[in-house]
Amino acid sequence: MSQLRKDPITGRWILVNITNPKRPEDFDLRPQAKKGGTCPFCAGNEKMTPPEVEAIRNPDTGRDTGGWLVRVVPNKFPALKIEGDLDQRGIGIYDMSNGIGAHEVIIETPDHSKDLGDLTEDEMRNVIFKYRSRILDLEKDVRFRYMLIFKNHGLQAGASLEHTHTQLVALPIIPKRVIEELKGAANYFNYKERCVFCDIIANEKQEKLRVVSENSNFIAFCPFVSRFPYETWILPKTHARHFRSIDDNRVGEMASILKDTLARIKKTLNDPAYNFIIHTSPVRDGINEGFHWHLEIMPKLTHVAGFEWGSGFYINPTSPEAAAKYLREVK
Amino acid sequence: MSQLRKDPITGRWILVNITNPKRPEDFDLRPQAKKGGTCPFCAGNEKMTPPEVEAIRNPDTGRDTGGWLVRVVPNKFPALKIEGDLDQRGIGIYDMSNGIGAHEVIIETPDHSKDLGDLTEDEMRNVIFKYRSRILDLEKDVRFRYMLIFKNHGLQAGASLEHTHTQLVALPIIPKRVIEELKGAANYFNYKERCVFCDIIANEKQEKLRVVSENSNFIAFCPFVSRFPYETWILPKTHARHFRSIDDNRVGEMASILKDTLARIKKTLNDPAYNFIIHTSPVRDGINEGFHWHLEIMPKLTHVAGFEWGSGFYINPTSPEAAAKYLREVK
Repeated sequence: MSQLRKDPITGRWILVNITNPKRPEDFDLRPQAKKGGTCPFCAGNEKMTPPEVEAIRNPDTGRDTGGWLVRVVPNKFPALKIEGDLDQRGIGIYDMSNGIGAHEVIIETPDHSKDLGDLTEDEMRNVIFKYRSRILDLEKDVRFRYMLIFKNHGLQAGASLEHTHTQLVALPIIPKRVIEELKGAANYFNYKERCVFCDIIANEKQEKLRVVSENSNFIAFCPFVSRFPYETWILPKTHARHFRSIDDNRVGEMASILKDTLARIKKTLNDPAYNFIIHTSPVRDGINEGFHWHLEIMPKLTHVAGFEWGSGFYINPTSPEAAAKYLREVK
Repeated sequence: MSQLRKDPITGRWILVNITNPKRPEDFDLRPQAKKGGTCPFCAGNEKMTPPEVEAIRNPDTGRDTGGWLVRVVPNKFPALKIEGDLDQRGIGIYDMSNGIGAHEVIIETPDHSKDLGDLTEDEMRNVIFKYRSRILDLEKDVRFRYMLIFKNHGLQAGASLEHTHTQLVALPIIPKRVIEELKGAANYFNYKERCVFCDIIANEKQEKLRVVSENSNFIAFCPFVSRFPYETWILPKTHARHFRSIDDNRVGEMASILKDTLARIKKTLNDPAYNFIIHTSPVRDGINEGFHWHLEIMPKLTHVAGFEWGSGFYINPTSPEAAAKYLREVK
């Protein structure tokens, strides 16, 4: 069982396993080779996952059988559980809540050998359609306040299964990291009456130094304040607060630029581990004035060390200008 | 050359190498075996480091020669440079500053084979004396606003040299992570008129569940809101805002509990990589009402993944209650 806990000092939340803690001998940091054996995300092994939530399927194929293109299932080992009422209270001087939420897995392809960046644009589009439809469905549940979509690729990025997949977590709180970003954007908006992300896009288009690629509705660039080497963001050029409001045409453009960007990163950095995260507004509007949804890709090339942990202040050994040049020029 | 950059969205700062960026082929994530060859931190190799700043030495031994017990040198590849005037300004919509600061290395022992936890209490005390004296010296420079002391042990924790050492960075800004913690403590103090850390100590002493060890002036425990498995904090029991005000008697007690805690972590977790950080008040008092200095130890057992990066919300697979029990009971 998991518990949410709130730090009385910084307001930071954690989720902690209180009934089944990992023991010292459970950790293994040795790099893992590609495993043989049976993968629960491969076509033919549908019975190894919890029953499917949604899928894009060939006609005449049934639920939890083969013949799918993208398949969404509940996480077998969810960080948060969907059953139960939200229970938030204090214990002594601390505040906690139970771990209510949803944790789903979007299996991007039945083919174990492919990575997300290897999919065709059509296949990538189907994946993004599923991101959107799962958010729209889960948002009906009034207990959920934030929808976090993220991908871990490779062991160093925290991927526990190598078959390519994305995760969606529906949270009963708005995470601190999101609040900070929303508040930062709102402060800027209150001062300038403009969206900070729109200003950044205009700046990057003019300077060109950090731009990786563009299409008519999206831009990919290495942000001026990149925490990590080769960090790359993808933003819709038109101001939009919510990812889930993306229209079908823009899903196609997003698929195209995401495929292109992942291919550039893979080629430039020899298939590095990476995380990506969709930053979007909370479910019900509130402090999202001046917020602009986007996707942040963070290759895992360095180890976060004491300096970063102590300061929240990242040391980046590659300027985003240099990173963008490499990513722009790669064949 | 490095540049400090401030994120217009969150206020987060980074330090970025703008003249000599690391290229794609410069990264190597393969685990490194213990290297033979020449270590610049070993006795006899004093000429391989920049000239020493301070040392505790045997009588009749000269600067930059052998015969030392603890030796402080400038970092050969400093994140920040000590020469020059602080230059803070805007570039277009962004804010930046040049990378002024100090970056020193405290070499904890001349013996390559030892880790910090292997030192005797006397040797450990000498190391802590050097932490204190270097802060007191660097604080005279009015450009510096924060002194960050941290240790990276092991490759996974970001250590680039295996000979045991601690780093000290003097910063021209107060990092966001520190401000958050100071503000959090000040908010609590304003509301309760008590120090949140003192309240936590009282709570932990009463509950006992998360306590690892104690001596007359210090307590070690796994915090209720541990971000990482086996995260352990060491706090002075008497309220104190600044680490650098620690008296000689308490340095001895700190050496004793730090040695004991590192030994417990090493034994329990098979010598894991770890970071530790001294959290202390900024150089010149300000927003530190209700702040209480302490040391945070974070073993590196898990990979930070997309969920954590996206939410600032950590998933910890080991409850601090379980972790403290393992650490308390280890022989």
